[in-house]
Amino acid sequence: MSLIVQKYGGSSLADAESIKRVAKRIVETRKAGNEVVVVVSAMGDTTDELLDLANEVTPLATGRELDMLLTAGERISMALLAMAIKSLGQEARSYTGSQAGLITDAKHGSARIVDVSPTRVRAALDGGAIAIVAGFQGFNRGTGDITTLGRGGSDTTAVALAAALKADVCEIYTDVDGIFTADPRVVPNARKIDRITSEEMLELAAAGAKVLYIRAVEYARRHGVTLHVRSSFNNNEGTLVVNPKEGESVEEPIISGVAADLSEAKITVIGVPDVPGKAAQIFTLVAATDANIDMIVQNVSTAATGLADISFTLPKSEGARVLKALDDDKRLVGFHSLQYDDQIGKLALVGAGMRTNAGVSAKLFTALFEAGINIEMISTSEIRISVVTRADTINEAVRVVHSAFGLDGEEVAKVHGGTGR
Amino acid sequence: MSLIVQKYGGSSLADAESIKRVAKRIVETRKAGNEVVVVVSAMGDTTDELLDLANEVTPLATGRELDMLLTAGERISMALLAMAIKSLGQEARSYTGSQAGLITDAKHGSARIVDVSPTRVRAALDGGAIAIVAGFQGFNRGTGDITTLGRGGSDTTAVALAAALKADVCEIYTDVDGIFTADPRVVPNARKIDRITSEEMLELAAAGAKVLYIRAVEYARRHGVTLHVRSSFNNNEGTLVVNPKEGESVEEPIISGVAADLSEAKITVIGVPDVPGKAAQIFTLVAATDANIDMIVQNVSTAATGLADISFTLPKSEGARVLKALDDDKRLVGFHSLQYDDQIGKLALVGAGMRTNAGVSAKLFTALFEAGINIEMISTSEIRISVVTRADTINEAVRVVHSAFGLDGEEVAKVHGGTGR
Repeated sequence: MSLIVQKYGGSSLADAESIKRVAKRIVETRKAGNEVVVVVSAMGDTTDELLDLANEVTPLATGRELDMLLTAGERISMALLAMAIKSLGQEARSYTGSQAGLITDAKHGSARIVDVSPTRVRAALDGGAIAIVAGFQGFNRGTGDITTLGRGGSDTTAVALAAALKADVCEIYTDVDGIFTADPRVVPNARKIDRITSEEMLELAAAGAKVLYIRAVEYARRHGVTLHVRSSFNNNEGTLVVNPKEGESVEEPIISGVAADLSEAKITVIGVPDVPGKAAQIFTLVAATDANIDMIVQNVSTAATGLADISFTLPKSEGARVLKALDDDKRLVGFHSLQYDDQIGKLALVGAGMRTNAGVSAKLFTALFEAGINIEMISTSEIRISVVTRADTINEAVRVVHSAFGLDGEEVAKVHGGTGR
Repeated sequence: MSLIVQKYGGSSLADAESIKRVAKRIVETRKAGNEVVVVVSAMGDTTDELLDLANEVTPLATGRELDMLLTAGERISMALLAMAIKSLGQEARSYTGSQAGLITDAKHGSARIVDVSPTRVRAALDGGAIAIVAGFQGFNRGTGDITTLGRGGSDTTAVALAAALKADVCEIYTDVDGIFTADPRVVPNARKIDRITSEEMLELAAAGAKVLYIRAVEYARRHGVTLHVRSSFNNNEGTLVVNPKEGESVEEPIISGVAADLSEAKITVIGVPDVPGKAAQIFTLVAATDANIDMIVQNVSTAATGLADISFTLPKSEGARVLKALDDDKRLVGFHSLQYDDQIGKLALVGAGMRTNAGVSAKLFTALFEAGINIEMISTSEIRISVVTRADTINEAVRVVHSAFGLDGEEVAKVHGGTGR
């Protein structure tokens, strides 16, 4: 008997009909002899509707009350799903994050899981029931308050429960067939990846692949949870995200995939005195704004001026905040000026095989050069190369790179409506 | 400094605008130097919408999951109200029934409060905040599950908190100006009652007055909580429901009001052997169905037949169930047949003054007789007389009785849209 954690996103639970369809699928998994724990997001657009309501009441909604409000969403979907399963003759019990033992810190809106004690979930399974757990939410012991985990929180809930319950697999259901070598809307003949390491998946997620959230992949990697990303609209095998043990030989392609991200902007700090500690000073200011910095590039200062330029990328939504923080301390740091550019695109090529394969960067830069695409920033990790280009060339860049590394498939990938949440 | 518990129903919290209006009112109460605890129902039609959703998923929704679903409603309204209050510069914190210490038994859908320990609510008040509490819901310690209190549950929550916190008054906000001597839609010149004893209010509520639920009034009476029923749409004084101490002299009119109820049906058990224990046998069967029996009348058996007829009234919704239970044991009890009549109306005249005033029944029966209205059943308590008539004569009956006892006012009462919940 296997223990399977299944996570269904809002698009798989859009209305009563969808909930009944998902219930049937869950009951089939149970009847095949598995123990099943299901993690749910809020139905369809519920979360957005609740946010709209909050906004009508006040644009200044605070963390604690906003979390109280938003957690109503999963409460509705989990209760309905439990009812639907029971109406199919299978015992089911729904649990809030708090009841399922998802203990977090007190940071409302983006709480971190600090402990998982799914005693009641385990008891429900032992009693032969299917356990339904509200995703995205937790409980802080110190304040006694309800918290939420932030974007992609339901994926994280599913992975955390899978780890705590020592599940055989954590299935993430979405409305696409799995992880692709590139976004099928940009590269129509992108191939579904059958198997990928969590390390590569992490780089793809960080580089903008939307199907899985980086936090969930990190958690899965740290706890050795196997993920299976698949569609709730068919029974196809999806993508397995695995954690090969140290030294374990994994037959894998050099390159797993290409991801693109248009959600970032670039800030350039111009005329930074080239003396020790200046970069530290700048990024201490930036860190104080809680912004998520991605790529950082510093050019070499010319001896003549003794001044350097430092560029970094960050989410567009955080641009104004960081610009203000830097400008406030312009004199202290002693730079000349700031430049802000929100017309950039980021492309990342990911693959564990590039560790042992020379020439990957050369091939990437050549492909972009031949397509006439200019590279503005470069940053590399052991299994990833990222480049920044103009936003309007990013799709073309993804296509030429995808093709240059032999990732193109023969069929055109089927795409359902939109990406999962 | 007074401690005031305020309860707002769904019609007072229909949308973002209403919530902001209510928030303003609450902040005014706080700024006048009072400690304020607010109990909320779900917004407008939320509860009905959630029930519709459940019904789409399965008509067989069970207690535990239905309670989990429905409690999402108050969660939304309380969080929004807390946000609205905070946006006015006043500290506010919302609490679920469980967080507010509303401990109940495990009977899902109609749980009884067994303990109230509002530690966190008290702490919020001590910290200068306004506490918002979800009405209608509680927590069972044995199962660790969320429960709901059933119809009128938010009123009960408010009264229970008022009792536990030793509040000075529990204000029940609704969309009418208070308790009237009769339903203003039936008797346009009905008068608002300024002051009524909880004993009388109990009789009026039991007799069909919809503004307050009987359970809340019972709880208030048992714990000596003063209720103030008033409109959330104006600042008029409403109706005070008081608990005079034993022997305390209360200046009060003989008759407080007239209530009517069209929601009941009458079952007559025909040809019951007139031997000891038969009535007990019948009502044991009825009790096993959990039905709420109201009036019971048994006629005298004629010596010739040795058979009696027993009639009783009960909510129409419970008619089929009770008929079946009786019919199943027809042979055992030995009656002839059953009659079911759902075209009855019940009128109740309530007033503590009738204890010491002879002739109230005579006056009531005379008024009905003169209006040509036939009386089918009569039952009396110390401060109430109820009669059953044909359903289509009930409004006329209310009007003539209201007039006969001098309750008619000079003005026509203002009625807002519908009764509160």
